[in-house]
Amino acid sequence: MSGETTDLIHPVILCGGSGTRLWPASRESFPKQFIPLAEAHRSSFQATAARVTDTGLFARPAILTANDARFIVAEQLAQARLSADILLEPSRQDSAAAVTVAALHAAAQKPDALVLILAADHLVGDDAAFLTALRNCRPGAKAGHIMTLGLVPTSPATAYGYIQPGEALPGEAGQAGARVVQRFLEKPDAARAAGLISEGALWNSGYFMFRADVMLDEMRTHAPQVLEAAQAAYEAAARDLDFLRLDAEAFARAPKTSVDYAVMERTSRAAVLPVSFPWSDIGTWGALWEVSPQDADGNATRGRVALHGTRNSLVHSEGELLTTVVGLDDVVVVATSDAVLVTSRERGGEVKTLVEGLRAKGEPEADAHRLMYRPWGNYQRIDIGARFQVKRITVKPGARLSLQKHYHRAEHWVVVRGTAEVTVDDAVSLVHENEAIYLPIGCVHRLTNPGKIPLELIEVQVGSYTGEDDIIRIEDVYGR
Amino acid sequence: MSGETTDLIHPVILCGGSGTRLWPASRESFPKQFIPLAEAHRSSFQATAARVTDTGLFARPAILTANDARFIVAEQLAQARLSADILLEPSRQDSAAAVTVAALHAAAQKPDALVLILAADHLVGDDAAFLTALRNCRPGAKAGHIMTLGLVPTSPATAYGYIQPGEALPGEAGQAGARVVQRFLEKPDAARAAGLISEGALWNSGYFMFRADVMLDEMRTHAPQVLEAAQAAYEAAARDLDFLRLDAEAFARAPKTSVDYAVMERTSRAAVLPVSFPWSDIGTWGALWEVSPQDADGNATRGRVALHGTRNSLVHSEGELLTTVVGLDDVVVVATSDAVLVTSRERGGEVKTLVEGLRAKGEPEADAHRLMYRPWGNYQRIDIGARFQVKRITVKPGARLSLQKHYHRAEHWVVVRGTAEVTVDDAVSLVHENEAIYLPIGCVHRLTNPGKIPLELIEVQVGSYTGEDDIIRIEDVYGR
Repeated sequence: MSGETTDLIHPVILCGGSGTRLWPASRESFPKQFIPLAEAHRSSFQATAARVTDTGLFARPAILTANDARFIVAEQLAQARLSADILLEPSRQDSAAAVTVAALHAAAQKPDALVLILAADHLVGDDAAFLTALRNCRPGAKAGHIMTLGLVPTSPATAYGYIQPGEALPGEAGQAGARVVQRFLEKPDAARAAGLISEGALWNSGYFMFRADVMLDEMRTHAPQVLEAAQAAYEAAARDLDFLRLDAEAFARAPKTSVDYAVMERTSRAAVLPVSFPWSDIGTWGALWEVSPQDADGNATRGRVALHGTRNSLVHSEGELLTTVVGLDDVVVVATSDAVLVTSRERGGEVKTLVEGLRAKGEPEADAHRLMYRPWGNYQRIDIGARFQVKRITVKPGARLSLQKHYHRAEHWVVVRGTAEVTVDDAVSLVHENEAIYLPIGCVHRLTNPGKIPLELIEVQVGSYTGEDDIIRIEDVYGR
Repeated sequence: MSGETTDLIHPVILCGGSGTRLWPASRESFPKQFIPLAEAHRSSFQATAARVTDTGLFARPAILTANDARFIVAEQLAQARLSADILLEPSRQDSAAAVTVAALHAAAQKPDALVLILAADHLVGDDAAFLTALRNCRPGAKAGHIMTLGLVPTSPATAYGYIQPGEALPGEAGQAGARVVQRFLEKPDAARAAGLISEGALWNSGYFMFRADVMLDEMRTHAPQVLEAAQAAYEAAARDLDFLRLDAEAFARAPKTSVDYAVMERTSRAAVLPVSFPWSDIGTWGALWEVSPQDADGNATRGRVALHGTRNSLVHSEGELLTTVVGLDDVVVVATSDAVLVTSRERGGEVKTLVEGLRAKGEPEADAHRLMYRPWGNYQRIDIGARFQVKRITVKPGARLSLQKHYHRAEHWVVVRGTAEVTVDDAVSLVHENEAIYLPIGCVHRLTNPGKIPLELIEVQVGSYTGEDDIIRIEDVYGR
């Protein structure tokens, strides 16, 4: 295995998606790759990161993510006891720019480093087969090909693009099974998909493996504006806490285009390795049903669910909610604390249209979850009235909120778990479980968890206006 | 109209149903007749009570209801600015016993009083036509017939019993349209229903009008045990606050049987008045859809609802919840703060089976709402954790909770609206909006709303056990 250490693969996980089709569980403020969906106890991002931890095979991974998701990424890595470089995309410029940044980041360590691009929201059903596939990709990538994984189709899916493979690559790469890409094909209709499969076409998985220098060359040839913008953004990147923040102005210059369109469909170096492990991009609730464990009636359920006369359905119930279905087949029901979706397995893709409509109408549930993640922990509204609002606030051990004040509300804090250190104007006091403290309107205050266990408190806000924008931040350790 | 005052109709509203088929909006703890379903701003009970307020036509109404629903009945009457006698059934003995009590209560005022039996959960689409029907029933009832209203069917419904009318009653009663009942028929299947309609059969509405002495005579003949039990229960009834509580032991002796079976199918005095106003017993969600206003796509919605590609559906969303349906037709979706139901319009009747299953498994949502009504107001849980619970408590002006203590929890009360008078051991203090008070474990305390507006407070309970049964009541104005 000594050959491996010299050719470590540099994994780069792309985390930028918003997963609108999996609303209401997935929302802009906390998208699908961070939610335990296919597995009950970890997100697909965590599963993806865990898949590339073999230090004999992989270099330290890098994560490319949106600015808003940075604390979620950091927290989920910490939870899974993983570490990685976290690069922040200041704006969404599509995958060509992201892949270029990935190549630049690896090239900074080793110009011809092998880079593996992974999507954070894919399900892989057999990690060993996945790693074998990566090993089999390596010779082709080292030889200068841009390798993709092409899944042997298990159904005439219309949700995926297809790849038509050509002849075997020469030499070691070909012996491992890799073949030239003859053609990339757009998502087909069902009849066309069946035809493609009979011709030996493969599903385009979106995994890529390449030498950094090769991808940068190809970008220079086929997408020079993307390369220029990504390079400038990477070179001017600023370190911010544990994050590497790409330069916003430069990055915004990158044309919004996909790596498929910018490079893969134009390059002569594309190659594909046919693979056949269980895989899904979990693009819709129907796709999640397909890969979820099902009971004897074909139902896949999560949370408190009761069914009567229901088959082949996905029912996902969050928190304490009890969700029931009577006398319907092939449906999808997703119930969260503030929004409920009912659709069919077939037509779940139209959820995207629904959410766009909600967004256009300014419905907050379109993009924001009730549970809001913050660098210091999280909060959620548990009640609201004309002149009051109640929140449950959780603060991580050692974390502290910003020093702040409000013009329109007083706050009562009741500690229900752990210990709070509370600053009110010039006084600092410890508030223990089952103790309360009052924060008058206008006082300058700060909440810290000085302890070793999470701090939980109930905040009762009373005042003429309780909106989130009545927070005047005077000082913040998280640079907000 | 002078004839009317001497023949006032004594309306008795039967409120005993539990409305399981309309779960989760309707639950044992707050059944369908008390929920605004067909109308947005009043319950069918309130609509029913409002229908019999013409003092030229009606005597003071009486309400027969279950013990647990007594404060709901009293509050809904007060809200609607109506007053009535409220008789409490200590147990469910079915309609024969209830109708006998109704007859006894009217007879106590006038032995041959005209009694009208109304169900609290029926929808009547034309109050004027309903009152005309009652006037047309009166001659027959006065002449000693037990009158029913028979609705001219508008569809071959299988959810209703049917009545086959015979020849016209003699004299004034017949001139008003009343006819002898030839036969009562059980709920038919669809084919049989169509046949019955072609033969001129009518829907059995369950409205009855009779002379008190006539009904008591018939009970004596056909159901003497029911009469004996009801009579004993009524004679030993105790006044309790504003309620007349039937004697539990005596009432429990009444055989559980319906008035249809005990009397109507056996008596020779049954008569029917054909009527044709819009009417429904709102027995299922599908039935509610039929009588609800619908948009151009045939959808009937309530609350925050968004639909995409959905037709002929009923979507009912409570509170702040956003409920969405994509790409499904003919469905029923009912979302409440703690339970969600998804079913079809056709198979909504099976909800009863679902709820029985939930009850058997001990799921609290089977029978109890999150919002709990109490004589002094209401409360609902808004959050719960391992060692804490948070409630929003609303206390009516002038109301007071029991003097109580807890062995396992301390409580923090934050007043968010109105003013509280709080007793803690020997001290009494006023707590105003935006003030808090602490109740240590074991202290004897009481909460009163001394003011003119509702008092709202947030209660944070902290302790090792926060169940409802850790309330030691020392004194209670509501006799609990």
